[in-house]
Amino acid sequence: MKAFVYRGPGQKSVEERPKPGILAPTDAIVRILKTTICGTDLHILKGDVETCKPGRILGHEGVGVVDSVGSAVTAFQPGDHVLISCISSCGKCEYCRRGMYSHCMTGGWILGNEIDGTQAQFVRTPHADTSLYPVPNGADEEALVMLSDILPTGFECGVLNGKVAPGSSVAIVGSGPVGLAALLTAQFYSPAQIIMIDVDDNRLEVARRFGATRTINSSDGKAVETVRSLTESRGVDTAIEAVGVPATFQLCEELVAPGGIIANIGVHGQKVDLHLERLWSQNIAITTRLVDAVTTPMLLKTLQSNRIDPSRLITHRFSFDQIMDAYETFGHAAQTRALKVIISL
Amino acid sequence: MKAFVYRGPGQKSVEERPKPGILAPTDAIVRILKTTICGTDLHILKGDVETCKPGRILGHEGVGVVDSVGSAVTAFQPGDHVLISCISSCGKCEYCRRGMYSHCMTGGWILGNEIDGTQAQFVRTPHADTSLYPVPNGADEEALVMLSDILPTGFECGVLNGKVAPGSSVAIVGSGPVGLAALLTAQFYSPAQIIMIDVDDNRLEVARRFGATRTINSSDGKAVETVRSLTESRGVDTAIEAVGVPATFQLCEELVAPGGIIANIGVHGQKVDLHLERLWSQNIAITTRLVDAVTTPMLLKTLQSNRIDPSRLITHRFSFDQIMDAYETFGHAAQTRALKVIISL
Amino acid sequence: MKAFVYRGPGQKSVEERPKPGILAPTDAIVRILKTTICGTDLHILKGDVETCKPGRILGHEGVGVVDSVGSAVTAFQPGDHVLISCISSCGKCEYCRRGMYSHCMTGGWILGNEIDGTQAQFVRTPHADTSLYPVPNGADEEALVMLSDILPTGFECGVLNGKVAPGSSVAIVGSGPVGLAALLTAQFYSPAQIIMIDVDDNRLEVARRFGATRTINSSDGKAVETVRSLTESRGVDTAIEAVGVPATFQLCEELVAPGGIIANIGVHGQKVDLHLERLWSQNIAITTRLVDAVTTPMLLKTLQSNRIDPSRLITHRFSFDQIMDAYETFGHAAQTRALKVIISL
Amino acid sequence: MKAFVYRGPGQKSVEERPKPGILAPTDAIVRILKTTICGTDLHILKGDVETCKPGRILGHEGVGVVDSVGSAVTAFQPGDHVLISCISSCGKCEYCRRGMYSHCMTGGWILGNEIDGTQAQFVRTPHADTSLYPVPNGADEEALVMLSDILPTGFECGVLNGKVAPGSSVAIVGSGPVGLAALLTAQFYSPAQIIMIDVDDNRLEVARRFGATRTINSSDGKAVETVRSLTESRGVDTAIEAVGVPATFQLCEELVAPGGIIANIGVHGQKVDLHLERLWSQNIAITTRLVDAVTTPMLLKTLQSNRIDPSRLITHRFSFDQIMDAYETFGHAAQTRALKVIISL
Repeated sequence: MKAFVYRGPGQKSVEERPKPGILAPTDAIVRILKTTICGTDLHILKGDVETCKPGRILGHEGVGVVDSVGSAVTAFQPGDHVLISCISSCGKCEYCRRGMYSHCMTGGWILGNEIDGTQAQFVRTPHADTSLYPVPNGADEEALVMLSDILPTGFECGVLNGKVAPGSSVAIVGSGPVGLAALLTAQFYSPAQIIMIDVDDNRLEVARRFGATRTINSSDGKAVETVRSLTESRGVDTAIEAVGVPATFQLCEELVAPGGIIANIGVHGQKVDLHLERLWSQNIAITTRLVDAVTTPMLLKTLQSNRIDPSRLITHRFSFDQIMDAYETFGHAAQTRALKVIISL
Repeated sequence: MKAFVYRGPGQKSVEERPKPGILAPTDAIVRILKTTICGTDLHILKGDVETCKPGRILGHEGVGVVDSVGSAVTAFQPGDHVLISCISSCGKCEYCRRGMYSHCMTGGWILGNEIDGTQAQFVRTPHADTSLYPVPNGADEEALVMLSDILPTGFECGVLNGKVAPGSSVAIVGSGPVGLAALLTAQFYSPAQIIMIDVDDNRLEVARRFGATRTINSSDGKAVETVRSLTESRGVDTAIEAVGVPATFQLCEELVAPGGIIANIGVHGQKVDLHLERLWSQNIAITTRLVDAVTTPMLLKTLQSNRIDPSRLITHRFSFDQIMDAYETFGHAAQTRALKVIISL
Repeated sequence: MKAFVYRGPGQKSVEERPKPGILAPTDAIVRILKTTICGTDLHILKGDVETCKPGRILGHEGVGVVDSVGSAVTAFQPGDHVLISCISSCGKCEYCRRGMYSHCMTGGWILGNEIDGTQAQFVRTPHADTSLYPVPNGADEEALVMLSDILPTGFECGVLNGKVAPGSSVAIVGSGPVGLAALLTAQFYSPAQIIMIDVDDNRLEVARRFGATRTINSSDGKAVETVRSLTESRGVDTAIEAVGVPATFQLCEELVAPGGIIANIGVHGQKVDLHLERLWSQNIAITTRLVDAVTTPMLLKTLQSNRIDPSRLITHRFSFDQIMDAYETFGHAAQTRALKVIISL
Repeated sequence: MKAFVYRGPGQKSVEERPKPGILAPTDAIVRILKTTICGTDLHILKGDVETCKPGRILGHEGVGVVDSVGSAVTAFQPGDHVLISCISSCGKCEYCRRGMYSHCMTGGWILGNEIDGTQAQFVRTPHADTSLYPVPNGADEEALVMLSDILPTGFECGVLNGKVAPGSSVAIVGSGPVGLAALLTAQFYSPAQIIMIDVDDNRLEVARRFGATRTINSSDGKAVETVRSLTESRGVDTAIEAVGVPATFQLCEELVAPGGIIANIGVHGQKVDLHLERLWSQNIAITTRLVDAVTTPMLLKTLQSNRIDPSRLITHRFSFDQIMDAYETFGHAAQTRALKVIISL
C-alpha cells in the first residue's frame, strides 16, 4: 500500500509499504477514506517529537472502512464506516477508567507516533472497540475527520477545562485551527464574550465569521488593556492558550480575572515564567491536558443535531497522490490561509 | 486601649490608642479575648506588605466579645462571644456571592493590613454580620482562634483546591503551621497517603504525630525519588505547596502525578519556572487562592463534633503584656519549636 | 397609591393604599414601571396559598425606579432603575451563603405573599442590596421583567438542576410560560434534542418557534412510546416537569433514561406515586427547587450579549388601569394564547 | 464441582455441576476461596427476582484464584488471586464509559442471576479485565469479600450519591449490613453527625460501635421529632434509605432538610408516596442507584491504608459443606445477629 513516511528531521517520502495485519485480538485494520494533517505532524517532520522514529507512517486522524477485526472485537465488523480517534484507549487501565484516555497505559497518542498512522491506505488500530466510533448514517465524512483530534482538543483542553459557562467571558489566544476549534465549541455554553487574539488579521477575520464577539490583533502590545476595557477592568473568566510559546502563556496570565482559569492547549517546547508573586492571591487555576478524546460521543451528537459544523475548518482538499502538496499548503498557512486540509484516498 | 503597632520596616511598638468606634451601620466593635500572630505579621514587620502602612495595629485573628454594633447589624448584639474571620466579607458584591470573600470589593484581607487589627484591646470589624461567627456554647476559645485564618487557609487553599479524596495520595511540602493545618484538615477526606516534606526533623516529627503517613526530609535532594517509590512511580494526586519559594513550587511540579493537582498555599515573592515543556501533556491543574474563609461554618461544625482538634497547633501562651516575647518566640520558630502562640487579654 | 389587592378566595380589587415607607435600614422603596402576572398569583386568588392573607397587594415581578433607600443600602440610590427579584435575600444567613436564597431566613418568596408586592405604584423591597439588580444601560425593561421570576425559575429548577449538557436529550412536559422559559434557557447548553410535550397544539407551535427540536401532543397517550423511538429506546437524559400534577410527574418517571434526571419545576398540590419498584435500580435523580434567583446576574449577562431574547414570552400589554383585563387575559390563556402580560404604570 | 443452586421459590440444593469453561476471549475461570450470602440471594430464593431462573448457581461475591483466562484477557493470569466484583463490566459500552457499570449492555448484575455465580468451586467471570481486581499482597481475603458488593453499595448508593461532607449531618434508616456499610464509609468524609435509625436495639448497638454519633429506635414513632431536635429543627443534609419499604422511604422524606438529599439504597418491591405537595419547594434531591462498583479501586486503597476495616461486618464463618447452615444463620439475622457470613472453600 501507499504511505506517507517520516524519514528523519526534514525528510519525508511517499512509499510502498506492506498492508498491516492484526497483531492483537482487540485490533482492527481500517482502510482509510479521508485523513488530514495536524500541526503535530509538522513538529515531527522538524524532528521535535522524540517518540516518533524515522520510518514511521504519520497521521492520527481519519475516517475509513473496517477491513478486518481481531477475535475480541465486538463492536465493529468488516464494512463498517468508522471515525478513528487520535487517542487509542484500552478502556481497562486505571487511567482509562478515570476518563484519562490520553494516558492509557497501552495506548494514548500512539498512532502516527509510536506505531504507524493514518496517512496510508490502511492502518492497524489497537483497542478498536474503544478507539473507533461508528460513522452515523448520512454523516458528512469530511466533517467527521475534524472529530479525530482538533475538535475534541479545542473542546476538552480549552472549553471544558476552562469551564466556559453561560454569561461568562472567554479570551482565546491563537486563532489557528485549534483556537478556532475552541471558538466553535465554546459556543456550546453561550458565553457572553469570546475575544479572539492573534497577530494575523486574516485569521481574526475567520474568527469573527466563526462567532468571536470581538477580535484583537495583539501586535501593538495593547491586548491586555483592550481586554480589561471590555471586562470592567477584571480580565476574563477563561483564558485559553492555543499557541504554545512563553509570550502567549504570559499574556494569558495577564488576561485572567480573579477566580478565573487559564486553560492551556498549546504544545510547549520550553518552560514559561509563572508570576506567582502576583497570582498566588488571585484564586486562579491553570490546567493542562493532552486531549483524551473522551467527548467524542458527545461531539458526534452535537454534530448530528447540527449544533456545530466542523466542516467550516476545512479550507483545502487533496487526493492522496497530492499529499506532498497538501503538506506544502498546510505548512505555509500564513500565505495559503489553510486551516485544515482533507486528503482523500 | 493598648495595641501592637507596626512602625515601619523592622520597627514595632506597644502603644496606647483610642478605642475604635462604629463608622458604618454594618460595623461591630469587639473586645478581644484571645489573638495570635501569623507568619504574615512577620512579613509586614519586614516591610514586605505594601498595603500595610506604618501606624497600623496588626492582627487579623482572634476571639472576643461584642462591645457594640451598628444599626444594620442583626446577627449579633453586645455580649456575644464571637470568632473574628481574617477575611471581611460584605455578602453583597459579585465576589462575595460567588463565595470568593477574599476578593470582596469592600473587604477581603483588610484587618491588620488596611485597617487596624486584632492585636489590641478592641477592634472595629466591618461587615460584622458576614465576618463574625458566634462562639458555640462551651467551645474552647483558644482552639477557635485557629479558625480565624490558619485552618481555613490550609483547608481551602490546600485540601479543597487540591481535591483530596478517599484513597488518594497527598504530598504537603512545608511542615510549618499552615502545612500542618492542611495535614489536619486533609484527614477529613481519608486519603490513603499523606506524605509530609520539610527540611526540619522536628517539624516532621510533629507531622507524624498529626497524622502524616510518611515524612521525608528533603535536604538530601531525594524527595522526588522517594515519593515516586511510594506511588508506583506516578507521583501524588495532590501536591500542596505550603512554603512560598520557587524551589518548593518546583518540587511540587515534579511530585504531581498525571491527572493531579498542585494546590498552592504559599505566599510567593517572586516568579517561578513552570515547566510546561513537560507538564502541557500531563493533565494537571495548578491552583492559587487567598483564603476566602467561606468554610468557617463547616469547620466550626467539625470542631464541635470533635472531628478535628486545632488546639494541637498551639505551642505557647502569652499575656498581651508579653506580646513582644510572643513575637520573639514565634519569629524564631526553628529554635523555639513554636507553631501557633496564643495571646490572652 | 393604586394597588391590586387580594381580598380572599375569588375576590380581588384595585384599591387606593398609602405609599409604603422604609422599615429597616436595608429596605428600598421602588416606584414600579413594569410588572406582570404569575401563575402563582392565580393560585393565590383561588385561595390555594395559605401564607398569603386577604388584604395583600399581589405581585413579585417588576422593574422600577428607586424612590428612597434605608441607611444601610450601599448599592443603590434614588433614581436608579432596578430589576426586582421575586426572591428577597439577606445575603447573610446560612441558606443565602449556600446560594439557597429561596430559603433565606428573613426573605425568600415574600413579595406579594407575606408582604405587599409589586402590582402597585410603589413597593417596599427588603434586603435591597441583595434583592435588586441595576438595569443595564439601554436594556429593554419589558424583557427584563422576565428575569424577576420566570426565566430564573425555568433555568434553575429545570435546566441547571436537570444538568442539561451539550449533546444531551431533554424532554419538557408542559409548554406553558415556565416550560417555555426552560426551553429558551436549555439552549444555553446546546442539547441535541429538546422534546416539548403538551396537550395544546397552539403552545406546541410556540415551542417549535422557540427552538424545540420536536413536539409531542400527549393527548393520545403515546408520548412515552414516541420519546423512546427518538432516543434509541432509552428515554431522555433530562425530563423537566413544568405542570405540577401527578400525571405529568409520572410521565417524567417513564421518560427518564437510566442515569438521567427528573427536574421538577411544577407547584404540586398533592402527593404523587413514585415507582421505586422500577426506579430503584435506574440510577436516576429527582430534584425539586423553589427558584433561588441566584442566577440573575448570569442571566442579565446572557441578555445583554443577545444570547437570549426573553421578550418573546410577552404576548399582551396593558396599562395599570387595565389590570383587571390583564388578569382576565392571563387567566384564560388557552383562549387568549397569553404567555406573559406586561402591565405598565 | 459442588455448587449451591436455586431450584425455584423456596427450593435450594447443593449439587454436583460441571466445571465451567471459557466462552468468550474476555472470560476468566476463577476457583473460589471465599464467598458470602447477600440479602438479594434470599430474595431470589423467595422467587422475587424474575431474571433468576431455577437451576441457577447463586452468589455474586467472592475472592478466588484465576484458573484460566481467555485469549483477550491481559490483566490476569492463572494463579492470580482476585476479588470478584458483583458487577460485570465490559468497559466499552456507553454506560461503562460513563462509569455506570451497573447498566453495562453486556454485563451489570448478572453473576448468580442471569449466569451462574460464585457459590460454587469455580465460576466463569465475563469481561474479566474490567470485572476482577488483583488481591493486594498480604490483604485479608475475608475482608476483601466485603468489597464485592456490600461496601461499594453502601458507599456509592448511600454516601457518594448522598454527598456526605465534612461537618454535614447524615441519617441512615436501616442498620442492617448495607446500612452499616454506609455508616462505615460515610466516615471517609468526616460528617458532624451520623444518626442511625432502626427498630432493632441490637443492630443499633452495633451501629454505635461502628461510629454512629447517635442511634434512634424508631419503634415509638418519634424518630422525626428526635432528628429535628438534633438538627436545629431542620432535618439532615443526607438521609440514606437502607431498607426498601414505603414506610422507611417516607421517613426519609420527613427527615431531609431543605437543600438536602435522600439517597436510596433499598431494593423496593412497590411504589412509594412522594409528597411533592410539600417537597416541591424544599430544594431536595432523591437519588437511586444500582451499585456500579466503580469505586472498587478506591475502596481497595482505603482498605490497604487502614482507613476502614470491613472485616467488622463479618459475624459468622462456615465451610462450603455447611452452606445450608450459613443460609439459615443469615436468613434469621434477628435471632442470630448475623451481619455477613463467610463461606470458605
